Amino acid sequence: MKNHKMLIQYDGTKYNGWQKQGNTENTIQSKLENILQKLTGMDVPINGSGRTDAGTHAKAQIANFKIETKLSEKELMNYFNSYLPADIGVLSIEIVNERFHSRLSAKGKKYLYRINNSNIPNVFERNYVWQVCSQLDISKMQEASKIFVGEHDFIAFSSLKKSKKSTIRTIYSIDIYEENGEIKFLFYGNGFLYNMIRILVGSLVEVGEGKKSPEQIKNALEENSREYAGFTAPSCGLCLVDVEY
Amino acid sequence: MKNHKMLIQYDGTKYNGWQKQGNTENTIQSKLENILQKLTGMDVPINGSGRTDAGTHAKAQIANFKIETKLSEKELMNYFNSYLPADIGVLSIEIVNERFHSRLSAKGKKYLYRINNSNIPNVFERNYVWQVCSQLDISKMQEASKIFVGEHDFIAFSSLKKSKKSTIRTIYSIDIYEENGEIKFLFYGNGFLYNMIRILVGSLVEVGEGKKSPEQIKNALEENSREYAGFTAPSCGLCLVDVEY
Repeated sequence: MKNHKMLIQYDGTKYNGWQKQGNTENTIQSKLENILQKLTGMDVPINGSGRTDAGTHAKAQIANFKIETKLSEKELMNYFNSYLPADIGVLSIEIVNERFHSRLSAKGKKYLYRINNSNIPNVFERNYVWQVCSQLDISKMQEASKIFVGEHDFIAFSSLKKSKKSTIRTIYSIDIYEENGEIKFLFYGNGFLYNMIRILVGSLVEVGEGKKSPEQIKNALEENSREYAGFTAPSCGLCLVDVEY
Repeated sequence: MKNHKMLIQYDGTKYNGWQKQGNTENTIQSKLENILQKLTGMDVPINGSGRTDAGTHAKAQIANFKIETKLSEKELMNYFNSYLPADIGVLSIEIVNERFHSRLSAKGKKYLYRINNSNIPNVFERNYVWQVCSQLDISKMQEASKIFVGEHDFIAFSSLKKSKKSTIRTIYSIDIYEENGEIKFLFYGNGFLYNMIRILVGSLVEVGEGKKSPEQIKNALEENSREYAGFTAPSCGLCLVDVEY
């Protein structure tokens, strides 16, 4: 059995996220696994580097699966692309060490969140940005974002009720900048909890609007209190852009 | 009555083109006129700089209309945007000379046609590019495109059966270049016939694939023969990017 590493892009607008859930066929993982089932006649699991939320996109999701096939990597890629819908694409497939696991081997991830801070819509990017009409103070958001950098328990900034697993994560950096008329938030960390980036963005936007102070954000983090944190920004603005190994 | 000039963007994927046709409500013009009807209580015509085909996009369509209103230009823009669907946006409105007419006053237009010349799909741009898997020879297409530059009768490169109006148009330039992994065709001319750019692109692609020679293209133009010209490239790759006055 050869271990295949796959680079995948998707427009998540129509899907219930990456992860297969019970009978839900409308996930990226299901769409890919169905094609592998067609090819091999077997139920082969495809491991993603991490879940993405319903409506969230990926420019560079990584997944791996183990099969025996006579197809070359390029033929395998073409096989996937010939059956996939137009909003999911496989960009490359390579054979890797059998120990490689797209989630367990991952060392870092980068997510980009895009805001159109304007009352003029961007019709071509409407599914990939969050339109915020109120004016945001970028330097205030940059200042507040420093609170999150480093190793913290991020339970307050997640939609998890309780967790047996650790909710400690390390954020290496958060870059907030203007580009092409948008405000972009680039998050780089060793992993992120359920809804974590969307709540970080919601909290920072409330700071940028002057509705929350950086101190309130700091309290939320220190007291593990979800209610002090900000709201959950919409999923459409979020995109997984890099997974490091 | 003040004459208003409007800059509009739209993702044409879901629409039957710019122009209102009989009872078809599913056009860009209808969507805009319905909002003006709501505002003024009257049927006010909105003149576009030109028709765009079903499925074709615009980054910079220009239109004008004459109304009396107490709203400022910015309030009027916000009024449109609050009622428009997310795939149509008004970018600006200004008051212009009463003689200005978006179609009759237009001196030049630029259209961009985008091709993803790859067997790997671009999921985020899928509605804005034509994916061509066969390899295209750019220099051959550049060479052949010179045939079209200048003043010609383009009846062979249109879907018009017959026309009482002139089918002579002037193309100022055609630039074909690679950018961001795509092949782009920028057409600049004083006007274009129905389906003309899509047929020019289809013809050039057949040259790029080696299926047609530049001489055949030249014959089609000189003999006004639609059957010698190429096929009609899909509407999704086409976008109106500039109108000059």
